[in-house]
Amino acid sequence: MTAGIEPPNERQYVITLSCSDTTGIVARIAGFLADAGGWITEAGYHSDPATGRFFTRQVVRADSLPFGVEELRERFAAVAADLGDATWNVTDTGVIKHMVILVSRELHCLHDLLGRVALGELPVQIDAVIGNHENAAEIVEAHGVPFHHVPFPETDKAAAFAEVRKLVDQHDPDAVVLARFMQILPPELCDAWAGRAMNIHHSFLPSFVGARPYHRAHARGVKLIGATCHYVTPELDAGPIIEQDVIRVDHSDTAEDMVRRGRDIERLVLARGLRWHLEDRVLVHGNRTVVFH
Amino acid sequence: MTAGIEPPNERQYVITLSCSDTTGIVARIAGFLADAGGWITEAGYHSDPATGRFFTRQVVRADSLPFGVEELRERFAAVAADLGDATWNVTDTGVIKHMVILVSRELHCLHDLLGRVALGELPVQIDAVIGNHENAAEIVEAHGVPFHHVPFPETDKAAAFAEVRKLVDQHDPDAVVLARFMQILPPELCDAWAGRAMNIHHSFLPSFVGARPYHRAHARGVKLIGATCHYVTPELDAGPIIEQDVIRVDHSDTAEDMVRRGRDIERLVLARGLRWHLEDRVLVHGNRTVVFH
Amino acid sequence: MTAGIEPPNERQYVITLSCSDTTGIVARIAGFLADAGGWITEAGYHSDPATGRFFTRQVVRADSLPFGVEELRERFAAVAADLGDATWNVTDTGVIKHMVILVSRELHCLHDLLGRVALGELPVQIDAVIGNHENAAEIVEAHGVPFHHVPFPETDKAAAFAEVRKLVDQHDPDAVVLARFMQILPPELCDAWAGRAMNIHHSFLPSFVGARPYHRAHARGVKLIGATCHYVTPELDAGPIIEQDVIRVDHSDTAEDMVRRGRDIERLVLARGLRWHLEDRVLVHGNRTVVFH
Amino acid sequence: MTAGIEPPNERQYVITLSCSDTTGIVARIAGFLADAGGWITEAGYHSDPATGRFFTRQVVRADSLPFGVEELRERFAAVAADLGDATWNVTDTGVIKHMVILVSRELHCLHDLLGRVALGELPVQIDAVIGNHENAAEIVEAHGVPFHHVPFPETDKAAAFAEVRKLVDQHDPDAVVLARFMQILPPELCDAWAGRAMNIHHSFLPSFVGARPYHRAHARGVKLIGATCHYVTPELDAGPIIEQDVIRVDHSDTAEDMVRRGRDIERLVLARGLRWHLEDRVLVHGNRTVVFH
Repeated sequence: MTAGIEPPNERQYVITLSCSDTTGIVARIAGFLADAGGWITEAGYHSDPATGRFFTRQVVRADSLPFGVEELRERFAAVAADLGDATWNVTDTGVIKHMVILVSRELHCLHDLLGRVALGELPVQIDAVIGNHENAAEIVEAHGVPFHHVPFPETDKAAAFAEVRKLVDQHDPDAVVLARFMQILPPELCDAWAGRAMNIHHSFLPSFVGARPYHRAHARGVKLIGATCHYVTPELDAGPIIEQDVIRVDHSDTAEDMVRRGRDIERLVLARGLRWHLEDRVLVHGNRTVVFH
Repeated sequence: MTAGIEPPNERQYVITLSCSDTTGIVARIAGFLADAGGWITEAGYHSDPATGRFFTRQVVRADSLPFGVEELRERFAAVAADLGDATWNVTDTGVIKHMVILVSRELHCLHDLLGRVALGELPVQIDAVIGNHENAAEIVEAHGVPFHHVPFPETDKAAAFAEVRKLVDQHDPDAVVLARFMQILPPELCDAWAGRAMNIHHSFLPSFVGARPYHRAHARGVKLIGATCHYVTPELDAGPIIEQDVIRVDHSDTAEDMVRRGRDIERLVLARGLRWHLEDRVLVHGNRTVVFH
Repeated sequence: MTAGIEPPNERQYVITLSCSDTTGIVARIAGFLADAGGWITEAGYHSDPATGRFFTRQVVRADSLPFGVEELRERFAAVAADLGDATWNVTDTGVIKHMVILVSRELHCLHDLLGRVALGELPVQIDAVIGNHENAAEIVEAHGVPFHHVPFPETDKAAAFAEVRKLVDQHDPDAVVLARFMQILPPELCDAWAGRAMNIHHSFLPSFVGARPYHRAHARGVKLIGATCHYVTPELDAGPIIEQDVIRVDHSDTAEDMVRRGRDIERLVLARGLRWHLEDRVLVHGNRTVVFH
Repeated sequence: MTAGIEPPNERQYVITLSCSDTTGIVARIAGFLADAGGWITEAGYHSDPATGRFFTRQVVRADSLPFGVEELRERFAAVAADLGDATWNVTDTGVIKHMVILVSRELHCLHDLLGRVALGELPVQIDAVIGNHENAAEIVEAHGVPFHHVPFPETDKAAAFAEVRKLVDQHDPDAVVLARFMQILPPELCDAWAGRAMNIHHSFLPSFVGARPYHRAHARGVKLIGATCHYVTPELDAGPIIEQDVIRVDHSDTAEDMVRRGRDIERLVLARGLRWHLEDRVLVHGNRTVVFH
């Protein structure tokens, strides 16, 4: 069912860059692309007045340039070198991205992602799904994706994480998606997968960090519940937020109703955050994100 | 994967009734239930001032009554007979509901419903999926559900609909879900399945009735796009609305972007409308619905 | 401009009650009203499974009863006495409610409330506005409402609160609205005005309790900002929540943009919460609220 | 109370341009600004693939340029002349914008706009309010704004419109806001005020064009109601849409409830659309708008 994943018809190069803000950056980049005949189909700019940092994302039609992505990288490196302390990246939509999904017992986000990838809605190939329970095996394998069961005994989580790491790293994935994976990543994995590991937390962060957020939301009597997609960092549920959303609840919703109804917003928020990540729309800025829509 | 569908732990009887409004209806129904020892876990009432029509939905714990659902129906019939021109129904959550899904080529709603049913999120069993294309077969069968391919040649749609009707009616389903089924039901099927056939239309009705609503929304320059779940009636996209929702778009969204982004709202709106239908929360009132949340 | 405040055409009595849940409460209350010929125009019920507490709100047309509000109270007292540990209230929409508004320097909520009252959108009379700055005087007096300036010197807030209390209590208002009043009510005032003092907090509680919530929201990089209307209790920003809502922000919004944009959601959330309070739709349940819409 | 309207501390020039899309436009404009030392604080770009039209909005700090707004216009004219069929504009946030508001009997949008302007939330001065009823006079004059009463007798609307036009045109306003003005502008006024006359329509267009939209929404049984801010064109309610939003309703809302509840969304949508117009964020593209946020 994953046959739907093909490069888009119009191959494009996506350039992202951040650097210290100063006069003339846009002119420099736009001039470089114009001189090469580049046809820009999307361009986003952001200048943060508080930190003096500049961010941009440019999408260029591959067939408008007289050279390939490797030469684009070489030439763009020279441009970036002129800009103070620039961090940059160039990706090619003709190269399929890869991801690995980690799950536990709750499978609604997994089902949703499998469906979206099968239908070609997300530009990614799922290399593997790893679960600390076995209940995901059937649906994952029905989608033609390998499933790995890695139990997480309370007494030896370190070994389990080592096994997960081995399984993940062999794919060198562009995204490691914790799709309601209920284990806390150890710091060394947060570091190894920095900027690639994404979590869906079932609350509107920073409210209700940690366990049982819906039950705590119910106890507090909130009128909206939410979900948050964020990059994973060593501090629990405190990484840069990519996307959030909420739905309305009322006094008639029990904590269990909130759990059930919250699934809809978890599915959507994770799918949106993941899409933006895969399309190189998300630039991390300290503990915040710039997301170019 | 459909093994998850079991009767809920707490079996309940759901009573719905509409009648001409007058003083004392609530007292009559509540008195009847109280006399029988009924423990009401949910109760909704609505009185429409414009039409003088009264609506109610009562949920009673089965184990609080000294008799079963058949006797409840008999006894309640006597109550209802005292109320002017009452229409009523009593269902038992211990009896699993059934549905048939009709699809065409676009499968995002189908994937979503299959996933929800597999996870036990919707109280229903899918008896069959019928498609006028074959591309749904694999995922449907992976979920252990029979798939029937019924081609719809332009020259003989009547025969195709007759075949669909035969396939559907053998299950006598509680819901016939048109999950982006792009064929217009003939009037005799609308009548046969009145109050059971539900459609998801990919616009915020009554805007953009009919074909290519996203393209027309794009041409009009709207700032929100939506989806509508409604009961099917002979007039196209004009039946009683069960649920609607919208998402924001802007000038950078092409018609194709709207098609893609609209899928998220179609999935959600159909799933919500279907859940309410299956939980007997929806009462039709002329061309409108009363939905007890 | 406050001439618009008149009793509604159709005078109604609003009954609210909470008690321990048991079989037959609805029948008891509905039977009482039916026997008296009461025409119920709205009825809400809620039973909380976790605490076993039952809540109801009934609206009855005054002209359908053969007696007035005082006799209704007497008769209903007898009904309530039969129900375990009931708390109840009966109000008359023919009696205009009164409120006092406390403000500081930020006046957007004040302007909004003055406009709504002037247009007859809120069923209340504003008896007075009290400000710890003078800048509200002109608009308040233009609306024909008395304005009292009570400075809050850092060195003697106790005296200032005593003055505020005297000014408020002479009106015995149904609502004391802290419309961006930046002073923390002392516990004795929280007690004196329990269930009547309402605050609008400029965050989606429980996130960002206390000062400068927009700046902290900006620092955390949230993608939605919100506002919360809640009853005031001695613990800061921790009282029962009446209403909340959010709006979307993104990386281009500075903290100052959030302050500006948040005003729209503060205005709306306070106006909605206040309307529900004035219509006796809000019942407090521990630290949560039941809101009958 | 309008004393709050002053130029912002940081004076800025806002450049908007649209032209046929081709390679190098961004480089040309950015290069021009960089050569002049211009500090760009906001930059938006949009290229419409369907029509091949390019749009941009650039905000430059006035104090970063070695010349004033007149010379900027002269120099930019030379840049624009190089671009095919460019339409462009340069405005100066140091020059206060002006508007005239037209109202009828419903005053909620008027109250809202007066409050926002008084609080400095909208960068505009209200030169006059014109009403075809007298009920707005008191609040308008309390805000220090001239009010003109122009009756609209059924038998001679042409004369009334001539009077309105005379009153409006003497201010040559940047915006003519129809804040629930229930008269249909004649074509010659639509032409005279093209791109400046804005209307708030109380439905989610294109649903319910024309009169009594809430009553028609109620009859259709929609689950969301909305409002639309659009530029006025000769075809009724068919002009380019600037902003829309919706709120949820249910079966318990009468048409009158929808009228009341809809006011909140009308206020917000008009205020947002007007702000964007005044900040030169809205570019008209055929019957659609590009809105740079």
